[in-house]
Amino acid sequence: MIMANEKKLVEAITSMEEDFAQWYTDVVKKAELCAYSSLKGCMILLPAGYAIWENIQKELDARFKETGVENVYLPMFIPESLLQKEKDHVEGFAPEVALVTQGGTETLPERLVVRPTSETLFCDLYANIVQSYRDLPKLYNQWCSVVRWEKTTRPFLRTTEFLWQEGHTAHATAEEAEERTIQMLNVYADFCEQVLAIPMIKGRKTDKEKFAGAESTYTIEALMHDGKALQSGTSHNFGDGFAKAFNIQYTDKDNTLKYVHQTSWGMTTRLIGAVIMVHGDNSGLVLPPKIAPVQVMVIPVMQHKEGVLEKAVEIKEALSRNFRVGLDDSDKKPGWKFSEQEMRGIPVRMELGPKDIEAGQAVLVRRDTREKTIVSLDELEAKLSELLDRIQKEMLERARKHRDEHTYTAHTTEEFKEIVSTKQGFIKAMWCGDEACELKIKEETGASSRCMPFEQEKISENCVCCGKPAKTMVYWGKAY
Amino acid sequence: MIMANEKKLVEAITSMEEDFAQWYTDVVKKAELCAYSSLKGCMILLPAGYAIWENIQKELDARFKETGVENVYLPMFIPESLLQKEKDHVEGFAPEVALVTQGGTETLPERLVVRPTSETLFCDLYANIVQSYRDLPKLYNQWCSVVRWEKTTRPFLRTTEFLWQEGHTAHATAEEAEERTIQMLNVYADFCEQVLAIPMIKGRKTDKEKFAGAESTYTIEALMHDGKALQSGTSHNFGDGFAKAFNIQYTDKDNTLKYVHQTSWGMTTRLIGAVIMVHGDNSGLVLPPKIAPVQVMVIPVMQHKEGVLEKAVEIKEALSRNFRVGLDDSDKKPGWKFSEQEMRGIPVRMELGPKDIEAGQAVLVRRDTREKTIVSLDELEAKLSELLDRIQKEMLERARKHRDEHTYTAHTTEEFKEIVSTKQGFIKAMWCGDEACELKIKEETGASSRCMPFEQEKISENCVCCGKPAKTMVYWGKAY
Repeated sequence: MIMANEKKLVEAITSMEEDFAQWYTDVVKKAELCAYSSLKGCMILLPAGYAIWENIQKELDARFKETGVENVYLPMFIPESLLQKEKDHVEGFAPEVALVTQGGTETLPERLVVRPTSETLFCDLYANIVQSYRDLPKLYNQWCSVVRWEKTTRPFLRTTEFLWQEGHTAHATAEEAEERTIQMLNVYADFCEQVLAIPMIKGRKTDKEKFAGAESTYTIEALMHDGKALQSGTSHNFGDGFAKAFNIQYTDKDNTLKYVHQTSWGMTTRLIGAVIMVHGDNSGLVLPPKIAPVQVMVIPVMQHKEGVLEKAVEIKEALSRNFRVGLDDSDKKPGWKFSEQEMRGIPVRMELGPKDIEAGQAVLVRRDTREKTIVSLDELEAKLSELLDRIQKEMLERARKHRDEHTYTAHTTEEFKEIVSTKQGFIKAMWCGDEACELKIKEETGASSRCMPFEQEKISENCVCCGKPAKTMVYWGKAY
Repeated sequence: MIMANEKKLVEAITSMEEDFAQWYTDVVKKAELCAYSSLKGCMILLPAGYAIWENIQKELDARFKETGVENVYLPMFIPESLLQKEKDHVEGFAPEVALVTQGGTETLPERLVVRPTSETLFCDLYANIVQSYRDLPKLYNQWCSVVRWEKTTRPFLRTTEFLWQEGHTAHATAEEAEERTIQMLNVYADFCEQVLAIPMIKGRKTDKEKFAGAESTYTIEALMHDGKALQSGTSHNFGDGFAKAFNIQYTDKDNTLKYVHQTSWGMTTRLIGAVIMVHGDNSGLVLPPKIAPVQVMVIPVMQHKEGVLEKAVEIKEALSRNFRVGLDDSDKKPGWKFSEQEMRGIPVRMELGPKDIEAGQAVLVRRDTREKTIVSLDELEAKLSELLDRIQKEMLERARKHRDEHTYTAHTTEEFKEIVSTKQGFIKAMWCGDEACELKIKEETGASSRCMPFEQEKISENCVCCGKPAKTMVYWGKAY
């Protein structure tokens, strides 16, 4: 018997070559990652989507704590006057905030902003609890949701409310703050490569693209399968700008009052969008083993035959000690179960039928390459472990190869325009540092400056836009 | 040298016998569990407080998942019209909600409620995704914060915004929904006893005290050290009331359309308040080992002597494989470090000086009883494990003994009033089931009905208030 939701699944998803945006929406929906809510622009994370976020959280949180970060929780509301304390910051965020004006039966004397980010709240806290150099550094982080009133939204990539973590640190010196800013960017980039299997370009944002109130913003940028860029995490150095606005001072060892230096850094559920768009294919989601909620799906073949289901259960339980294992013992046909496992991006499926059991073996099929291996049941655990490691590694290699093959070099404006109109990917080109050139390129080609990479190359002597002497190489690209 | 925050600590906290409420506030502040924010009624969870919540989450979440529950995330905003769909529910919550009226630059066409609880959002989702009996049950839970506009607030116990989990399930039958309601209440009670070392009275709320929109509400009630009751978790059976209001129907096996039956259940950061008020003493917090962020604090004595600090680090690292271990190698005096460890409620401190090292031993001191044991370093890990188990067990026993010694029985109104005016604790008394009697007792004595316990006793034949035939025994008490 075919169920209602099975019928939906068999309709082919749009192919990514035909319409990448529609392919993305189809995958998000058919892999049951999220559902739309009654409220435009807000999404519901369903179990399959939320479980990926839980794995991301677990991995990131452990990495944060290794560097001495502690978790806290601050209120979701910011009194409007508090948001206004730092001039650049309020200019950046005021146009996109949600405001609470009524609480219980009373109209509030002061409007409350639903946090779009929490710099101001952390500053308010640090002003209260930091007195001496002994109280520094403060290395706080929180996991929460934030709200930014967006006009056009897209699941995971841009939603009115989204889940994220925001780290906020306070340090005695400018050097220490800069060091922490870079350290967290490196934590992010390593996490993306090692866990999400997505290679990152690390660099600094131009002044135009930096965070509202920051002295400098660092970013990691990834290339999606369609050749568009995705800003995947940012780390900001605030210098002492917020400290001065909020009067966060400490008594140093020399008994003088000094301002602290601050940083903040954040990553969001947008990372799930990156995973979909880097690794997915025309059969659906492809999840890296390290964040897959289910790493292996055991699918019995001819499960009505005596002993098949029992053996499948036995294997599932044995494997569950070291892997995240599912068992599909529903009454659907095996072929249908295979499609479902592929749609959901489960890295490996294990097929097990009466003949396999007789031969003391199982068939392992990789989701990413569809490669089949026959494995002796005695060696199952070791082979599976090897296979998952190999998948993780090869997914990163493939993503890097794709990224490198879609990274182009432009020496002149003409070349830049030629690349933009015929190819999709990153463009490396020199820049003089003048915002006018940056704006002109964006306007004429649609490609924005993604970052000034830490790994610089001297492509030419001159700015790709104005021809004046160049200061730096920039990665450009159309972006989500 | 004594630091600013050390000075604060040495001021004695108010004794609980003198002023329990002030003692509570002092402990919350001096153990650095939370800080006040600029926003009245909203608190900041500092690292020491949030880490307890993380441990609670981890333990509870694993227990939920064992029963098949899956985590999701729904939006924080509820369109006002959605909240109004179930009549009793909106009546219960409307007076205490925060309303968003402005989003970005526009005044919203419909006001948005910041979720006080998410029944209506889950109903809206289930109406969309439940079609067939095969889609049932839905066993969803979310970890998030909610907002209820409170007039008087108190850290952990009652705040405008608080952290919690809310489980929402949908079932094919009334029986299954009732079974799940009780099952989750049992999960809560077991968790509180086994992990928080707090014994619970399980029972049903009277109609007056039940949740807005519920058919029946079950509760677990604990007794604090001052003899007041604390409602610690609730589980609600909604029957098909919400299903009818939101039209959540499924096609059953017999091909007819039926309404689902729903439940919800929640626990909050209030549990941290319970831990403080059940286990704390006049030296500060006392944490049960299972939720203590640090279980053992290694404190070197004469740490300037050669080899002491090295040995302390070595032991800390060895123990960290199986325990949550801290090492206080600051330049404070050992006596001061002891006070800090006591204030923070760390279950065991390990004192280690040059003589101990020479003798191949360490001194373990229990936080709860202050009992000292000298332990050979060879056996440290085994002895520590035993000790932590013993502490956990004895904390529960002590809390149970205190609760039982402060549970009284009233046969008549006079006896009830006598107990209320001379003692602090639970009062067991019979009730006719008439709300008028329940209200009268509350009004005349200040004690509210806590629950109709599952474990009933027949104290007398008649209602303690009106003298008419009694239907049930009720636990009464003054409550937080």
